[in-house]
Amino acid sequence: MKQLAIIGFGAFGRLAASQLAGRFAIGVHDVQVAEAEVRSAGFAPQSLKDAAASDIILVAVPVQAMEQVLADVGRHVRPGATVIDVASVKMLPSEWLSRHIPDSAHIVATHPLFGPQSAVRGLEGRQLVICPIRGDRHLKVAALGEALGLRVRITSAEEHDREMAYVQALTHLIGRSLAQMRIPDEMLKTQTYQHLLDLTGLIGNDSFELFTAIQTLNPYAPEVVEEFVRRAGVLLDQVRR
Amino acid sequence: MKQLAIIGFGAFGRLAASQLAGRFAIGVHDVQVAEAEVRSAGFAPQSLKDAAASDIILVAVPVQAMEQVLADVGRHVRPGATVIDVASVKMLPSEWLSRHIPDSAHIVATHPLFGPQSAVRGLEGRQLVICPIRGDRHLKVAALGEALGLRVRITSAEEHDREMAYVQALTHLIGRSLAQMRIPDEMLKTQTYQHLLDLTGLIGNDSFELFTAIQTLNPYAPEVVEEFVRRAGVLLDQVRR
Repeated sequence: MKQLAIIGFGAFGRLAASQLAGRFAIGVHDVQVAEAEVRSAGFAPQSLKDAAASDIILVAVPVQAMEQVLADVGRHVRPGATVIDVASVKMLPSEWLSRHIPDSAHIVATHPLFGPQSAVRGLEGRQLVICPIRGDRHLKVAALGEALGLRVRITSAEEHDREMAYVQALTHLIGRSLAQMRIPDEMLKTQTYQHLLDLTGLIGNDSFELFTAIQTLNPYAPEVVEEFVRRAGVLLDQVRR
Repeated sequence: MKQLAIIGFGAFGRLAASQLAGRFAIGVHDVQVAEAEVRSAGFAPQSLKDAAASDIILVAVPVQAMEQVLADVGRHVRPGATVIDVASVKMLPSEWLSRHIPDSAHIVATHPLFGPQSAVRGLEGRQLVICPIRGDRHLKVAALGEALGLRVRITSAEEHDREMAYVQALTHLIGRSLAQMRIPDEMLKTQTYQHLLDLTGLIGNDSFELFTAIQTLNPYAPEVVEEFVRRAGVLLDQVRR
């Protein structure tokens, strides 16, 4: 069995560990999580150096911390290893991976379009975006995704971020604004309002860290979300006249 | 068979005429629609005076034109008649109805939470809000609504407008802004983004006249929609810092 190191034992790292247990010999590195907690979840805690020297290294840290972690990992990666990230934006992480992971290693950038909340009802049909960065191991990642029941789409980091400016940045801005307003579940409601309630329920609990990453680390996001806020303001001005 | 006059042969007036044909002797008054068009739809065109002298008068004109129409109708309404409106806001129309319809007539304010688009798949389960204004004919309207398969809710005009500030004003502002942006139906999409696409599809085609009425003639709407735009702007400021 190949060694798979998961660096970052947050919500997504834990989901990956539980879904991939049995397919790999899993080690876990996270400086912010006690070793006892990793062990009680059934996994072996590792030092960064040992984790980075595994066959496959899955980096699942917040995007904001990622470049530093990749710089540290890069020093210990062995020739032929595969480094994979799971960040919600892809252009910047792809640059960081190319810069810090030695040429002798493979790089696969991915974005699983699901988290522990949506995975509760199973992984079947959930989407996995794969951006090949270096080498051909993205094909192995695609095969693994399919074996897990995921819908796999292989595309470029640019195309991913362009689409995600709408699919993520816009929906998260709307959902987070509505969650802050605590929009009520009214007695009289339309199908349309139910869409807003459902959207808010699905992403209202996401961390501010993720929200910030989606809005600021995707180069296409600011234009899309600012256009939305601007158009809403203009519409309100128009009706007041 | 009682006489039912439909004043205003726009999208909703036509839907009402087709749904109520057979239950009433229907007459139609609309100064902007040719008599030949009313006849070819199978209904009898009427003067405003004849329409207003019917047993039941259903006013289905845009809210912006409604007060003047009610003032004209009020002069010809007979004792014991019932005047019904179908506007998307209820506090202002209720005031106008009370002011212009003589005390000898019954008044029932209603808001059917559906239009020709959503009624294509049938009326079953659609919502009808009824606000009793004067007399007890709201019970007859409720019975008719139930006979048509509608879910009927009887409430006050104030409570209706308070809930609709969220259910209508907020959803229409978001849907219209997104429709103007022509948000794309991306390949990579989440459940959340599908909610935005569906919402935009459901209300993107509504008239600017209806949008304006929803935003400006509901006294609770401005506070709710402005809070949304403000919170979205503040969130974007926060992430840029």
